[in-house]
Amino acid sequence: MINGEKLTATPIRWAMVGGGKGSQIGYIHRSAALRDNVFQLLAGAFDIDPQRGRDFGASLGVDPGRCYPDYQTLFAEEAKRPDGIQAVSIATPNGTHFAICKAALQAGLHVVCEKPLCFTTAEAEELQTLAASRGRIVGVTYGYAGHQLIEQARQMIAAGELGDIRIVNMQFAHGFHSAAVEEANPATRWRVDPKFAGPSYVLGDVGTHPLYLSEVMLPELKISRLLCSRQSFVASRAPLEDNAFTLMQYHGGAMGFVWSSAVNAGSMHGQKIRVIGSKASLEWWDERPNQLSFEVQGQPVQVLERGMDYLHPAARHDDRIGGGHPEGLFEAWSNLYYRFALAMDASDRDDRAALAAIRYPDIHAGVEGVRWVENCVRSADLGGVWVDYR
Amino acid sequence: MINGEKLTATPIRWAMVGGGKGSQIGYIHRSAALRDNVFQLLAGAFDIDPQRGRDFGASLGVDPGRCYPDYQTLFAEEAKRPDGIQAVSIATPNGTHFAICKAALQAGLHVVCEKPLCFTTAEAEELQTLAASRGRIVGVTYGYAGHQLIEQARQMIAAGELGDIRIVNMQFAHGFHSAAVEEANPATRWRVDPKFAGPSYVLGDVGTHPLYLSEVMLPELKISRLLCSRQSFVASRAPLEDNAFTLMQYHGGAMGFVWSSAVNAGSMHGQKIRVIGSKASLEWWDERPNQLSFEVQGQPVQVLERGMDYLHPAARHDDRIGGGHPEGLFEAWSNLYYRFALAMDASDRDDRAALAAIRYPDIHAGVEGVRWVENCVRSADLGGVWVDYR
Amino acid sequence: MINGEKLTATPIRWAMVGGGKGSQIGYIHRSAALRDNVFQLLAGAFDIDPQRGRDFGASLGVDPGRCYPDYQTLFAEEAKRPDGIQAVSIATPNGTHFAICKAALQAGLHVVCEKPLCFTTAEAEELQTLAASRGRIVGVTYGYAGHQLIEQARQMIAAGELGDIRIVNMQFAHGFHSAAVEEANPATRWRVDPKFAGPSYVLGDVGTHPLYLSEVMLPELKISRLLCSRQSFVASRAPLEDNAFTLMQYHGGAMGFVWSSAVNAGSMHGQKIRVIGSKASLEWWDERPNQLSFEVQGQPVQVLERGMDYLHPAARHDDRIGGGHPEGLFEAWSNLYYRFALAMDASDRDDRAALAAIRYPDIHAGVEGVRWVENCVRSADLGGVWVDYR
Amino acid sequence: MINGEKLTATPIRWAMVGGGKGSQIGYIHRSAALRDNVFQLLAGAFDIDPQRGRDFGASLGVDPGRCYPDYQTLFAEEAKRPDGIQAVSIATPNGTHFAICKAALQAGLHVVCEKPLCFTTAEAEELQTLAASRGRIVGVTYGYAGHQLIEQARQMIAAGELGDIRIVNMQFAHGFHSAAVEEANPATRWRVDPKFAGPSYVLGDVGTHPLYLSEVMLPELKISRLLCSRQSFVASRAPLEDNAFTLMQYHGGAMGFVWSSAVNAGSMHGQKIRVIGSKASLEWWDERPNQLSFEVQGQPVQVLERGMDYLHPAARHDDRIGGGHPEGLFEAWSNLYYRFALAMDASDRDDRAALAAIRYPDIHAGVEGVRWVENCVRSADLGGVWVDYR
Repeated sequence: MINGEKLTATPIRWAMVGGGKGSQIGYIHRSAALRDNVFQLLAGAFDIDPQRGRDFGASLGVDPGRCYPDYQTLFAEEAKRPDGIQAVSIATPNGTHFAICKAALQAGLHVVCEKPLCFTTAEAEELQTLAASRGRIVGVTYGYAGHQLIEQARQMIAAGELGDIRIVNMQFAHGFHSAAVEEANPATRWRVDPKFAGPSYVLGDVGTHPLYLSEVMLPELKISRLLCSRQSFVASRAPLEDNAFTLMQYHGGAMGFVWSSAVNAGSMHGQKIRVIGSKASLEWWDERPNQLSFEVQGQPVQVLERGMDYLHPAARHDDRIGGGHPEGLFEAWSNLYYRFALAMDASDRDDRAALAAIRYPDIHAGVEGVRWVENCVRSADLGGVWVDYR
Repeated sequence: MINGEKLTATPIRWAMVGGGKGSQIGYIHRSAALRDNVFQLLAGAFDIDPQRGRDFGASLGVDPGRCYPDYQTLFAEEAKRPDGIQAVSIATPNGTHFAICKAALQAGLHVVCEKPLCFTTAEAEELQTLAASRGRIVGVTYGYAGHQLIEQARQMIAAGELGDIRIVNMQFAHGFHSAAVEEANPATRWRVDPKFAGPSYVLGDVGTHPLYLSEVMLPELKISRLLCSRQSFVASRAPLEDNAFTLMQYHGGAMGFVWSSAVNAGSMHGQKIRVIGSKASLEWWDERPNQLSFEVQGQPVQVLERGMDYLHPAARHDDRIGGGHPEGLFEAWSNLYYRFALAMDASDRDDRAALAAIRYPDIHAGVEGVRWVENCVRSADLGGVWVDYR
Repeated sequence: MINGEKLTATPIRWAMVGGGKGSQIGYIHRSAALRDNVFQLLAGAFDIDPQRGRDFGASLGVDPGRCYPDYQTLFAEEAKRPDGIQAVSIATPNGTHFAICKAALQAGLHVVCEKPLCFTTAEAEELQTLAASRGRIVGVTYGYAGHQLIEQARQMIAAGELGDIRIVNMQFAHGFHSAAVEEANPATRWRVDPKFAGPSYVLGDVGTHPLYLSEVMLPELKISRLLCSRQSFVASRAPLEDNAFTLMQYHGGAMGFVWSSAVNAGSMHGQKIRVIGSKASLEWWDERPNQLSFEVQGQPVQVLERGMDYLHPAARHDDRIGGGHPEGLFEAWSNLYYRFALAMDASDRDDRAALAAIRYPDIHAGVEGVRWVENCVRSADLGGVWVDYR
Repeated sequence: MINGEKLTATPIRWAMVGGGKGSQIGYIHRSAALRDNVFQLLAGAFDIDPQRGRDFGASLGVDPGRCYPDYQTLFAEEAKRPDGIQAVSIATPNGTHFAICKAALQAGLHVVCEKPLCFTTAEAEELQTLAASRGRIVGVTYGYAGHQLIEQARQMIAAGELGDIRIVNMQFAHGFHSAAVEEANPATRWRVDPKFAGPSYVLGDVGTHPLYLSEVMLPELKISRLLCSRQSFVASRAPLEDNAFTLMQYHGGAMGFVWSSAVNAGSMHGQKIRVIGSKASLEWWDERPNQLSFEVQGQPVQVLERGMDYLHPAARHDDRIGGGHPEGLFEAWSNLYYRFALAMDASDRDDRAALAAIRYPDIHAGVEGVRWVENCVRSADLGGVWVDYR
């Protein structure tokens, strides 16, 4: 159980790019990173407006002299210090991730990056190569993957409790953008502009979340081909979609389905994953993250609860509080940042065995998310036809 | 509210083909038909074994002399009687529906038939033409459509409470045939044999149920093209599928999705329909049929309950007991049989206005179910490609 | 599985007192009794208005000559016929139950009576003695007890799956009478008038329902003393209560609690029973009657579903349709009427072994309901103090 | 919305007594206090073993020189420093709370104390008087009260949305101590030993939680008399109870009920509060803290979700992340600690208006919890009789 004891020898010296005043995502990054003494916030380029960024950093207790006007200066100046940062988190709009991530890796920094890493698989693979050559960690914030019951599902599937896997049914289908809310809200506007958002809206913004959960739960499962049909129900969003259906055929014959939507009126998140095997199914819903439904055919449905002794030790490891007490998304993120720290620490010590044992959304996960969106868009733009996965 | 008062001038003289000793579906037909004095069971060809059929009929209080060895004799002998039957229900394996239904119509009988009516759209249209020319009613037992909250959904959608319809997300995905149970169970075996089951298994057996619910709720919505991918996860079932995904494009741009499955391990029924509009969604689940979720974007989810004053009068009409008391599938079927009786009565009185006002799963619904399966199979057999709906 | 085959040698000749035009409770009695060929409705005194009663009976197919103006005439005239009725159901206001039930037993009839049987334990015991001396069955319509999962709970508890029983937590707390609806609704008005309703409103009207469920599940548990606090939140209902809390101490140390209410605003039924043992608990909710929660301490909660093979054969026996299909209150009542018929048949054949094996809400259950209300009222009227149960 | 911006001029200098290595409750105190830059952990007496306490403090980044062997030394030494602590949190076993709290107040410190504050109302009032005279804040960690939807309920009730309040139905009934787990687990053992736990086990340990929620939601409601029946189902726990039922009469005629239990086998937390008015009810369950059920009689149940625009601004103020994302118990605690900081800051600035506007579990709440337990125990020990509340 994690309870605030120091997990790495010393906290990792850390900075943020973006995530400034009023940013919700910036807050969750900091809440997660700073929770357990594994990171220390020492510098940042928090805002596109330098003064506002400096003020904001100061309010967080960051030395104003280490609040920089832009990421280039941040990386350059910190590199000159003996106590300069070791890691940076990137919480900026999608269109800037690639350049910042690349610069950070080139500066020898570990990186935590918002998804998507970038807009093309080619770029993603470039980052992957760069990270490998520099021996740096790239963590990608598929935050839901930090929930303990995702690990529980992974372990149960690995142990064969579901039998042969047949179907993976996924959705992340909320309703918050049923109307053209972006017209009045700049924070939403960039998401539907290809210049800033990249080649897709909901496929990348929400669909990749349950997709990554499936990768965690089913590491062996590989997509063979897929078909995607996407729509812009709010017409002004075209060519970006606000709804998409993706059918996937896996190698070996299993089937997958992802419903990605921002126009599922009245739904809060609607992120669910159901893994169906020849003997049993598992189902998890991100709005009730402390429960996991285990359904053996011919037996009563069982509802597993976070924090209970009957869970796999790998799942219990992340407990911060006993069963019954609800944990939420912040704990899931904290679990990820804790692993990011372990991975960075192992990497710095060149402890490859330790590194290999840490499961977290890494550069590979980042690449795969970009690849999936790219394949979906390719299929959709060909008219919703089957395309070989590449 | 229905409470057992006589609904038609005199009960309709009624017989059954099939549904004999041990038949679960026969029991539900009789429970529904005989509940409210609108039908009177007077004859039957209950069993392929004449003696067993006669014994069974007698146990139900049917005159043994009107328990016939086969449907041909049933129709021929009853036609000779001045008090012969007016209507017949067909509860036999799928492969026999067409012939029996055709013979019944030719004998001038009203018909209630299990779905599917037959195996091809051509046959279905032949029955439709025959029924029209004879002025006879054909009711099809899409039993779930009799639940009151389906009518409530229909009325709310018609009143514009959802805004423009965008997505219809449907599933009927149970897990009872996750293993090859048919090897030990003859009652299941015919369902996976094309000779008796027709060109599909789960598409027709379960998928058409939520499809019909969508037709009830959204009478204006017409499929433009569809794509179906089907699988036989229990390999011995091939070419019949035990799982299928169907994507549909409607005229006007709305999208539909149907997941049909018998291998959704651990799921009981898993029949759900969610209709999503530009303003709100409605969701209904057949295992909790007394509740309907109404989700206006930006407002708290509302859970509507059967039997409450706030429902539409057309929904309340079917109440048999006050709100809070759960009604089940038998009430849904009773509601249908009650409408079948009203329709037969109106037809016999040639009251076309009355007839037009009765909403029930009629021959058109039967044809459309067959057509949908046919289109799905055509798409699937072409490799899961988009096909124009025809 | 019950599927309409004849269960008794010949249907029992049956009549109703009350339950006429517009009566919801009359409808459920007939739906249940007539469903499976075990009763035949041949006579009645359906209405306080003789002509309306006759018309109503005729609409049900009852010979108008056997539609009598009152119960006295009904019993007297039917006694003269060789084919006269064998059993009668009483669906009249509470204040009349005792007299009609007594007259019916004196006429040698089996009885099915709405609860409460009468207003005092002394009267109830008089009926019990009378029924015993005449060898007649009295069934009491604690309808919820007919749900299959109640039998499942009974069997699991008997098998020791809960360990030692510690707590029984019950409630039937709806909100339909949060306001003084009786002012506008005569059908409700008598319920809050002691002259017609007896010494209590919600204790008798709703509280006895879960109490009887506890008697079914826990036949060995006997109340040692209790304490009741009752309120009239709608003041005009005093001295009758619209809300009550009852604490019970059982012999052996277990504790019970019943919350009875008609002012639980916004609640539909709110009838629940939770039985807690040293090892596990069971919980059942009448609005989701097809599910039973089984909660072993330290293990995942299990949700048992009606109709599944893993249930006890005694529970499965009542299946009318496979698991997944929801059954409702009508099936629960049908299960009771089916048992009433078996009991009447066994009684007529003087088959005491068969009779002893049939579990149904009998005269003893009726007496115990009256006794409980009487004890509760006594405690409440003494100021909500502990009283020895007598 | 709270998002990490500095809320007070400078973080409050803060220490902990107890909550050392392996303490779950210590972790949640620190997570909550340190989250938003409103407290700074500078000193502590973390452990009864001084060396272990020092090591632990160091691992948290606390200057080892300010890690003291006991609370007396902590308070004395810090008082000598110009930068000494301003506030202390007490996370030790119940029996020590009074002495430490008193010493802290005498040392001029603000206090955050685990409940119960102490064992008798007299002691509690002594602390209250002391805090008032010193002008110091005492926060009590009724952590659940920090959930936003508790504030929403408070606001809705204040606005009259429920009508006149009639019934408050509460429970906190888990099953984790169904067996005598304390025999093997020292962390549980002290809870059932009156020397360390005080006069009650579950009444104080769990029952006071929903009681405090009712005080938040219904500040005007005052108990007039109550009746408590308590049991020790695990006999070795006597005289301390592991289960208790408490009935309460409020001034004005409303009724309350609290079920406190540690032997509700299979239940996780089971903490619920339902407030019932003449028009509507509200219900909240701590295991699904992001939902609040609002049930207007005669209307569909509404499920309010945390983080949505339709909530009251006072509830929305605590948002840390948008609706749909689940918040958990840690956010509830963080919301409390944030208010503790605001209150301490207002107190230090002698800003009485600001102080009066901050709603948090203060010394008054602490006193009332102790008083309630004392009254319950008095009633129970008299045999479960009504006692005037004092």
